[in-house]
Amino acid sequence: MAQGQGDYRILHEADLRDYLAGLPDLKALLGDPAGWTITEVGDGNLNLVFIVKGARGGVAVKQALPYVRLVGESWPLPLSRAHYEFLALSRQAQLAPGLVPALLHHDENLALTVMELLEPHIIMRRGLVAGTRYPRFVDDITTFMARTLIFTSDLALSAAEKKEGIAAFAGNHALCKITEDLIFTDPYRIAEQNRWTAPYLDGLATELRDDMDLHVTISRLKLKFMASPEALLHGDLHTGSIMVTDSQTRVIDPEFAFYGPMGFDVGAVLANLLMAYFASPGHERAPSERAAFEAWVLETVEQVWSEFARKFLDLWRAGAAGDAYPASLFAGAKGAARLEAERQAYMQRLFTDTVGFAAAKTIRRIFGLAHNIDFELIEPPKTRAICEARAVRLARAMMVETPVFRTIADVTGAARKLRDWQPELSG
Amino acid sequence: MAQGQGDYRILHEADLRDYLAGLPDLKALLGDPAGWTITEVGDGNLNLVFIVKGARGGVAVKQALPYVRLVGESWPLPLSRAHYEFLALSRQAQLAPGLVPALLHHDENLALTVMELLEPHIIMRRGLVAGTRYPRFVDDITTFMARTLIFTSDLALSAAEKKEGIAAFAGNHALCKITEDLIFTDPYRIAEQNRWTAPYLDGLATELRDDMDLHVTISRLKLKFMASPEALLHGDLHTGSIMVTDSQTRVIDPEFAFYGPMGFDVGAVLANLLMAYFASPGHERAPSERAAFEAWVLETVEQVWSEFARKFLDLWRAGAAGDAYPASLFAGAKGAARLEAERQAYMQRLFTDTVGFAAAKTIRRIFGLAHNIDFELIEPPKTRAICEARAVRLARAMMVETPVFRTIADVTGAARKLRDWQPELSG
Repeated sequence: MAQGQGDYRILHEADLRDYLAGLPDLKALLGDPAGWTITEVGDGNLNLVFIVKGARGGVAVKQALPYVRLVGESWPLPLSRAHYEFLALSRQAQLAPGLVPALLHHDENLALTVMELLEPHIIMRRGLVAGTRYPRFVDDITTFMARTLIFTSDLALSAAEKKEGIAAFAGNHALCKITEDLIFTDPYRIAEQNRWTAPYLDGLATELRDDMDLHVTISRLKLKFMASPEALLHGDLHTGSIMVTDSQTRVIDPEFAFYGPMGFDVGAVLANLLMAYFASPGHERAPSERAAFEAWVLETVEQVWSEFARKFLDLWRAGAAGDAYPASLFAGAKGAARLEAERQAYMQRLFTDTVGFAAAKTIRRIFGLAHNIDFELIEPPKTRAICEARAVRLARAMMVETPVFRTIADVTGAARKLRDWQPELSG
Repeated sequence: MAQGQGDYRILHEADLRDYLAGLPDLKALLGDPAGWTITEVGDGNLNLVFIVKGARGGVAVKQALPYVRLVGESWPLPLSRAHYEFLALSRQAQLAPGLVPALLHHDENLALTVMELLEPHIIMRRGLVAGTRYPRFVDDITTFMARTLIFTSDLALSAAEKKEGIAAFAGNHALCKITEDLIFTDPYRIAEQNRWTAPYLDGLATELRDDMDLHVTISRLKLKFMASPEALLHGDLHTGSIMVTDSQTRVIDPEFAFYGPMGFDVGAVLANLLMAYFASPGHERAPSERAAFEAWVLETVEQVWSEFARKFLDLWRAGAAGDAYPASLFAGAKGAARLEAERQAYMQRLFTDTVGFAAAKTIRRIFGLAHNIDFELIEPPKTRAICEARAVRLARAMMVETPVFRTIADVTGAARKLRDWQPELSG
């Protein structure tokens, strides 16, 4: 298990220039080092990110810090996450070519990776806040999810290959622990790092802490997250981990990668689209100004699930030949029909997981440590709280009344009904 | 990952004498090497087993062969299984002291382990064939299962410790593959190694191969076996892996150990007791001669589940403090009540798994490669086939009509009803 160690040091702009100038391939790609501009642009929670531009081209450089950037040195975090991110990016590049940034260089000791500069891509979440629609998104993200998930699962791998994969990522548990705490535990109890739009959501925060049905469900989801290595997950697949243009989609930042339940990735995408939908009224300057955008978001939610399921099933039917569901047990017309019924049942179970995880991902963004700009940029706070309360109401129903949500249309239908619902606020 | 390698050689009696004579502790335990008797007694499928007796005491020596002993050099099998067996035995000795043989010496290169000689213990399966009752069995086996399972699960470990455990056993996939093929696949398709009591069970074998409900269920169980690392399993917990006297129980041979679904171990114990029950009429020399034994077996089936569940729940309630179901989410009287309800629901899900795996373990012993002496020693074959057909009928119901079996009494009740059922045989 290679880890950043020994020669690790935090690189500043000048160090980075010297370091990159020593790599002939990168020097060739960028041009004369004397003309490089280097800018630190990391706005994530964990790492340093530099944009390096030269006469001939540009690259992005990501270096892990030995602590959580958002919090500081008091919260140490292993540099080995750069190793797992590199491993995951490499695998994703094989499985979903063109949908992740190209890898140009990796240094285990420095916990540093150099990648293709994505330009003029922007973080999708920013585009959604601005009300931008992305016509390529559904097709690209569903290809990414269907291929990375099925091809790292028991449906496509031998049990031995699968176990090797699980073991290769088992060491990334410190990143998993962040998810376990911040998504599956803290929002439901008193925790120093929690915050919410006070005082308006004070009552809702208390309800969450007292709601034992919710606590059982979130605990079952946590257990599934910890002990269901179905496939290699991205592990943090929100709209802040996706960079887009009108014609391109790139999934970035898989440092939370590990073998976990597929619904966690799919649910992350759906949750962040649903939050964009509920945040949208908070960003409108005139009534119905963003109606077309909002309709597109809900349509996108529906298509993300339906296209994902269609592609996943097609890959399965096309002969993903893992050790699960051996073909020899489903020979003949009767066998084929029964296996097809089982495939549908499998997708229904995955949908149920997805609904639960989507709800968990929503609640953590409103009551936990890490919030998102979809809601955070809404002013005044009371308007933000109204938008957030609608999202929480749907999320709570999705988590506790899961059987009500049999199809993705049940989810979007419920979201649409809550668009103009006026919650009772505290304060 | 230590593996037998480099200096590995198959030890014969004389080699073993020289080898052990070079180990001062063992020499002290056994006495003068000149007086040792060494006997190869391995009757299992995979390894060499020697009994070494000297003037002062005895030991058992187990050496892995680089192939499956039952089949020969044409079926290679990694020596590393001796490493995993040693690892599992060490862990089980910590968790369930006194219920596994004491470890005296381990040699990774030779894939060899020296253990306490269990004397006058016999293999439990032999005792059951003879109609012997074991008064200690329920208490010992339920202690073994409850403690080894809960203390290696997310209920007692941090997620990081759990992932380290999974990774430590991930390399044992060749042994898992044997289970995946021989239990979860081959009995349901045409496979060279299958055999059954022909011609009497020919029709039943054909039914099994055509029964798509069964194929879906066995495939779901296979997927669960491959992708649900709930706890460190023994992995082969049948009555041939248990040595007993009236007053002692020792679980041996955990070379199939890996992180898998708990119901697989519990189901193995129940299945092998149920097979002992169905085989019993085949061993009686006079009607009802074994009635008391048979009543004891069914009572034992019931108690194995109920005592296992009781002990498991007690350990959970007593504060098994893993990352699953965090105490902070279930504070107060309302939280405690809801968590207790969830514990009951957890055990119900585990029971359902157990019923399915027990059925799978039964069918493989009647139609797959590895049979058991419970049935094999019954003559004439037609009588054996009648006993086997009863076991298969129950197993098929347990696998496909799982919701019918809500409690362990539903299982024993169904078994009792089949005791004198006369199946239609082929041939």
